[in-house]
Amino acid sequence: MCLEEVNAVRPEEIEQASMKTIAAEMDPWRGPGENLPVVMRVIHTTADFEFQKNLRFTPGVVGRAREALRAGTTIVTDTMMAAAGVNKKACRALGVQVACRMSDAAVREEAASRGVTRAVVSMEAAVRETPEAIFAIGNAPTALIRLCELIDAGEARPALVVGVPVGFVNVIESKERLARTAVPSIAAMGRKGGSTVASAILNALLYGITR
Amino acid sequence: MCLEEVNAVRPEEIEQASMKTIAAEMDPWRGPGENLPVVMRVIHTTADFEFQKNLRFTPGVVGRAREALRAGTTIVTDTMMAAAGVNKKACRALGVQVACRMSDAAVREEAASRGVTRAVVSMEAAVRETPEAIFAIGNAPTALIRLCELIDAGEARPALVVGVPVGFVNVIESKERLARTAVPSIAAMGRKGGSTVASAILNALLYGITR
Repeated sequence: MCLEEVNAVRPEEIEQASMKTIAAEMDPWRGPGENLPVVMRVIHTTADFEFQKNLRFTPGVVGRAREALRAGTTIVTDTMMAAAGVNKKACRALGVQVACRMSDAAVREEAASRGVTRAVVSMEAAVRETPEAIFAIGNAPTALIRLCELIDAGEARPALVVGVPVGFVNVIESKERLARTAVPSIAAMGRKGGSTVASAILNALLYGITR
Repeated sequence: MCLEEVNAVRPEEIEQASMKTIAAEMDPWRGPGENLPVVMRVIHTTADFEFQKNLRFTPGVVGRAREALRAGTTIVTDTMMAAAGVNKKACRALGVQVACRMSDAAVREEAASRGVTRAVVSMEAAVRETPEAIFAIGNAPTALIRLCELIDAGEARPALVVGVPVGFVNVIESKERLARTAVPSIAAMGRKGGSTVASAILNALLYGITR
């Protein structure tokens, strides 16, 4: 293919062609139809078909999450990366704010003095401010575990938890911990996940309303 | 494990424990030793051991990239997410700027009027401004292809190209295109990659100097 042709491909055509390839290579989808666009967008973002098996949805979560987004519920993330990845045009259309406290000086200082992760302190601060927010954790299992404790204590009442931390220490445990709470959630079981996965899930929910 | 114990784990201990697990589960490393910390950090970020096989380094690239970072070379990314993921403390210590033009109004308008991706226009703008920058492409193959054309035309002379776009349309082709240029590069072959992979590679290079 000539490179000028490549660059002439329109952005919306690239996405359509990608989704067609993903649909052709995926296993037959046996879950609720409303979950499928979320799964496909995560595969689109990662080129990793493992997510068709890894993602766990609580019953009815996609419909409930969209109601919350339509109502302008704030999205809280555990990384600046995940916040940067959420589609701002869609958020503006719905009046949704995206907040991340990880880089706040106060969070940094408190984490250092307590010897815990900034992610833990940033979750505590976000729960005080917006206890009924949509919480998306794409990086730090410590943030997800702390959020689950605050849910059990009745201090956090999330409209949705996106639980997709990634890595090797306490990651699987944090997702199992989330599964034992009663909140609506979408989680990537196992070690995989990440900030791009978190924002892909949020964008799939947003696009289901705005596109 | 008691959850309070989990939250008492110090951040630096979490990373050390993760790296120990990664080292234990990786295949024996046969590449240059200086490339290994880059590979391990990408696995740390993705929990995906495929990257031990996917990553391609041009000869001596890690040493040359570190020289460029020590000299305060600007890093240009193709997404705000990749820019957000680069460690700002390390950049400040070296006088390195991180730039991304994707959200500029001028870039948006020009892309719409030409019917190309914003990623293409943002690369052209960055090459005009900082032709000898470190370019990190974690998302858009169109950005990487355009950058390669500008390299061949002698307009871009990157100190390093991190070529890790992700996805299904022109992604593999864009990485093969990069392999045919003469610039120092680190690329993830195949469909996988992403903004988190791009910033993980940059952070591994930075930490090799600042930690």
